[in-house]
Amino acid sequence: MRPADLTLTAAAAHIRDRRLSPVELVDSVLERIEETGPRLNAYVTVTAERARRAAREAERAVAAGTPHGPLHGIPVGLKDLIDVAGLPTTASSRVRDGHVAEEDSAVAARLAAAGSALVGKTHTHEFAYGLITPQTRNAVDPERVAGGSSGGSAVAVAAGAATFALGTDTGGSVRVPAALNGVVGLKPTYGLIPRDGVTSLSWSLDHIGTLTRTVEDAGPVLAALADPAPAAAATPADPAVPGADPDLTGLRVGIPRNHFFDRVEPGIEAAVRAAVDELVALGARPVEVEVPMARWIQAVQWGLMVPEATAYHEHTLRTAPERYEPDVRVLLEAGTLLPAGDHLRAQRARTLMRHGWERLFADVDVIAAPTVPLTAVPVGQETVTWPDGTVEAVSDAYVRLAAPANITGVPALSVPVGRSDAGLPVGMQLLGRPFAEPLLLRVGRAYEQAVTAPGRETRPTAEAKTVL
Amino acid sequence: MRPADLTLTAAAAHIRDRRLSPVELVDSVLERIEETGPRLNAYVTVTAERARRAAREAERAVAAGTPHGPLHGIPVGLKDLIDVAGLPTTASSRVRDGHVAEEDSAVAARLAAAGSALVGKTHTHEFAYGLITPQTRNAVDPERVAGGSSGGSAVAVAAGAATFALGTDTGGSVRVPAALNGVVGLKPTYGLIPRDGVTSLSWSLDHIGTLTRTVEDAGPVLAALADPAPAAAATPADPAVPGADPDLTGLRVGIPRNHFFDRVEPGIEAAVRAAVDELVALGARPVEVEVPMARWIQAVQWGLMVPEATAYHEHTLRTAPERYEPDVRVLLEAGTLLPAGDHLRAQRARTLMRHGWERLFADVDVIAAPTVPLTAVPVGQETVTWPDGTVEAVSDAYVRLAAPANITGVPALSVPVGRSDAGLPVGMQLLGRPFAEPLLLRVGRAYEQAVTAPGRETRPTAEAKTVL
Repeated sequence: MRPADLTLTAAAAHIRDRRLSPVELVDSVLERIEETGPRLNAYVTVTAERARRAAREAERAVAAGTPHGPLHGIPVGLKDLIDVAGLPTTASSRVRDGHVAEEDSAVAARLAAAGSALVGKTHTHEFAYGLITPQTRNAVDPERVAGGSSGGSAVAVAAGAATFALGTDTGGSVRVPAALNGVVGLKPTYGLIPRDGVTSLSWSLDHIGTLTRTVEDAGPVLAALADPAPAAAATPADPAVPGADPDLTGLRVGIPRNHFFDRVEPGIEAAVRAAVDELVALGARPVEVEVPMARWIQAVQWGLMVPEATAYHEHTLRTAPERYEPDVRVLLEAGTLLPAGDHLRAQRARTLMRHGWERLFADVDVIAAPTVPLTAVPVGQETVTWPDGTVEAVSDAYVRLAAPANITGVPALSVPVGRSDAGLPVGMQLLGRPFAEPLLLRVGRAYEQAVTAPGRETRPTAEAKTVL
Repeated sequence: MRPADLTLTAAAAHIRDRRLSPVELVDSVLERIEETGPRLNAYVTVTAERARRAAREAERAVAAGTPHGPLHGIPVGLKDLIDVAGLPTTASSRVRDGHVAEEDSAVAARLAAAGSALVGKTHTHEFAYGLITPQTRNAVDPERVAGGSSGGSAVAVAAGAATFALGTDTGGSVRVPAALNGVVGLKPTYGLIPRDGVTSLSWSLDHIGTLTRTVEDAGPVLAALADPAPAAAATPADPAVPGADPDLTGLRVGIPRNHFFDRVEPGIEAAVRAAVDELVALGARPVEVEVPMARWIQAVQWGLMVPEATAYHEHTLRTAPERYEPDVRVLLEAGTLLPAGDHLRAQRARTLMRHGWERLFADVDVIAAPTVPLTAVPVGQETVTWPDGTVEAVSDAYVRLAAPANITGVPALSVPVGRSDAGLPVGMQLLGRPFAEPLLLRVGRAYEQAVTAPGRETRPTAEAKTVL
C-alpha cells in the first residue's frame, strides 16, 4: 500500500510516530494525481509547491516536537469554489477567467492553521449547479459520471489523489459523488461550517461538507472546521444515544416507509437494507417512519434553489451569458422568470417541513436511507426509466433523496455500503437532528468497524484496487 | 376630567386606591365611544357586555384584596386583525364576512389574563394594507385622515374611547396614526410580542404594537405582552444608559443628517428639533449620524411587503377578488407579477441594512427623528407636493420614515412633541438597538416629564380639549 492510499487516521498516526514523513505522503499523493490525471481529471489546479512547503513545515514540526494535530501534513483537495488567497477560484467556469482570490476562505484558513497540505483545487460542476461534474470521471469506472457537484473532490479522495477533500452541498453535492465513488461524505448541520469566502449557489441551502475515505476520518476534519455548536444543541444527553462504540443498544433507527425507497435500484435497496441489518445486529432498534410532506420535496428544493442561484449570478448573466455552459445558463435564465410567490411558497413550505422533521426526530435518533436511487450512470446518460414507466432526469434522481437534508438543514452522512451487482459503489445516508454530527459519526463508525472487522472482506479504495 | 380621559397609570392608581371603580371607568369609556362614534367611527365592534363583565370582576378582585396588576379593569381596544375567541375578526374587509375567531390570539389571552376590559375591536385599513383607515376620522380634526393602518386604535386612545389599544405595524401602522392623533405608539423589536392569532400583512415586517396616551402608560402594556427578551439582549449595562430619571447625562442621541429630515413639513422639523433640545437640556449629547443605504429603504420595504402580502391572500384573491376594496386589490394583484429576483434583492438588502444599523448603534444609544414627514392630511388628499417640486403619494410619505424600523426590526417609539401651526399633532420617533425598549421608554418618559412639569403648558387629549 502506498502512502496515498492511507486513511487520514492512519497517515496521521504514522506521521505522529515518525514512521511516515509528511513529505513522503505529499509526494505519494502528488504522484497519484499525475498518474490518474489523464483518466479522471479531478483537479483544476495542482499546487505541488504549496503542498511540499506545507509538508516540509509539518516535518520540521514533528522533528522539533512542536505540538501538532491530526491534519498536520495531510494532503487535502478543495473544491474550486473555495477561495485560497493567491489562487484562482475558477468554479470550473469560463465566467471566472482571470479571477484570483485575495483572501483565504474561512475553511481554507482553518485548514492552513491545522497544518494540512493543499495539493490542489478540484473540479466542480460549473458553479456547483449540476450533479455530474462533466470534466471529471468516476474513480471506479471512468466511463461513468463522477457525480457532483463536488465530483473532483470525491474522485480525488476515492483515487488516493487527496487524503481528504472539501466540497459543498446544496442539493446533495457532497453526498451524491461520495456515494457514486465509494467514499464518505458528510453534510453537517446548516451553518455549522462557515461559508465565508466560498462561492454561493443558493445561500439558504448551501453547506460545506467533507469527503474522506472512512467515517473515522471525518471526525478530525469536522473538528477543525466547525464553529462551536450552539449551547442549546449540545445538551441532549439522550438516553438513546449509544454508549461505548460500537454498541448501538437502544439506538432508534428510522426506516422511511415512503419517499426514500421509492424508485430505487434493487441493488441499492438491498445494500442499504443489509447495512441497516448490521446496525440492528449492533443493538439498534428499527422504527418505521413516515417522511413528512414528501410530495413537496422536489418543488421546495427547486423553488428555493433556482431564484437564489439566479440572484447570485444576476450581473454576469446580463453581461456575459455566453461564458456559461448551456446547461447552467438555461437554469439561471429560467430563474429570472420565477414569480416571487413561488419562491415564497417554497420558503413557507420549508418552515412546515422543518417542523415535520423535528417531530420525526422525536421518535427516532437517526434515519437510514439510500443516498441516491441509482449508481453512477454512463457518461452522457441524461434520463433514467424506472420499472413503473416513470422517466426521470438523472439530475432529479440524484437530488431526490439528498434534498430533505438541505431543505431542513439537518446533518446527513453518506457511508459506503458495498457495491451493486455491476460493481458500482452504493451509499447509505444517515440523517440526524440538527447538531447531531457526533451521533451520526458514531453510528457510521460502528457500521464501518463491523464490516471491516477481521475475517470480513475489507473494502479497498478504488485506486488501491485498480492501480496497485 | 372624566374617567375616560385618565391615563392608564392614573386610572390604575385610582382603582388600586379604590377611588375609582373599574365599572365606572368602563362605563365612562363606553359612553365616550357612543359620543364620538358618529364623528370618528373608531370601532368595528363594541363589546360593552364583555367590558362590563370584566370591570365587575376587577371590582370584586379589588374589593376582595385579590392580587391584581396595572391592567386590571382597564378598557382596551384591539385592532380588528387580532383574534378574540367568539368575535369576528373582520380586518375591516368584506372578505371576512361571516368569520368568527375560535381562539384568542396570544395577545388577547395575555390581556385577558392581566384583567383588562375589552371594549371593542377597532377599524384597520383593510387587512392593514394602507396608511389611511378610511372608515375612521382623525381625533383632532374629523375632516382629516386618522392615519393607519391602526387608525381605529390610535383614534380611540386619543379620543378617550379606550384607555389603551393594540395595533400592528408593518410599515408604520402603529406609529403613523399615533403621530397623526397625538398619542404614543410603540413598535417593539421584531418578534418580542407574539403574533399568533393575528392576521398577517407581511410576516417578515409585521409587529404588534401599543397605543397609549403617555409613554409612562406603554410600560405596563409592553410588560404584559412581551416574551422575555433573549438573554443576549438583556446584558447591555451600557455606561451610556442614563441613571435616575429624568437625567439623561451621557446619553448619545443620534440626529440623522440624511433621510429623516428630507422633505419634512417645516412645522414637524421645528417641533422635533425642539424636542431634541429638551433631551439635550436633560443631559443628552447630540451626535450627527448618517443613515445607511437610505436610497434603498423604499424599494426594500415594498419589495418585502408586496409579495408576502400577496402570498397570504393568494386563495381569496383568486376566489373572491371583488370583495377587496380597489386600493388593496390592486396592491395584491401587483404582487402576483413581482419576480422572485426582486424579492430576493430586497431580502439581501435587508440583511446589509441590518448590519449597517448595528454599526450605527455602536455610536449612539438612540436616534431621534420625525415619525412622519407630514401631519394628518384632509380626507381625500392622495398626494403631497414638496417645495422641491417632488410629488409624493401620501401613503409613501407616511411609510417613508417608519420603514427602517420594520426592515431592520429595531424598536421605535413615537412620542407627541406638540402641534404644527395648523394645530395638528406632531410625532417624534425614538429608535434603539434590538430589545432596547426599556431605554426608549426611559428617554421618552424623561421628555414627557420635562414638558409636562408644573409651570409648563400640559397637552390635553384630543377629547379632553374638544369635549370637556
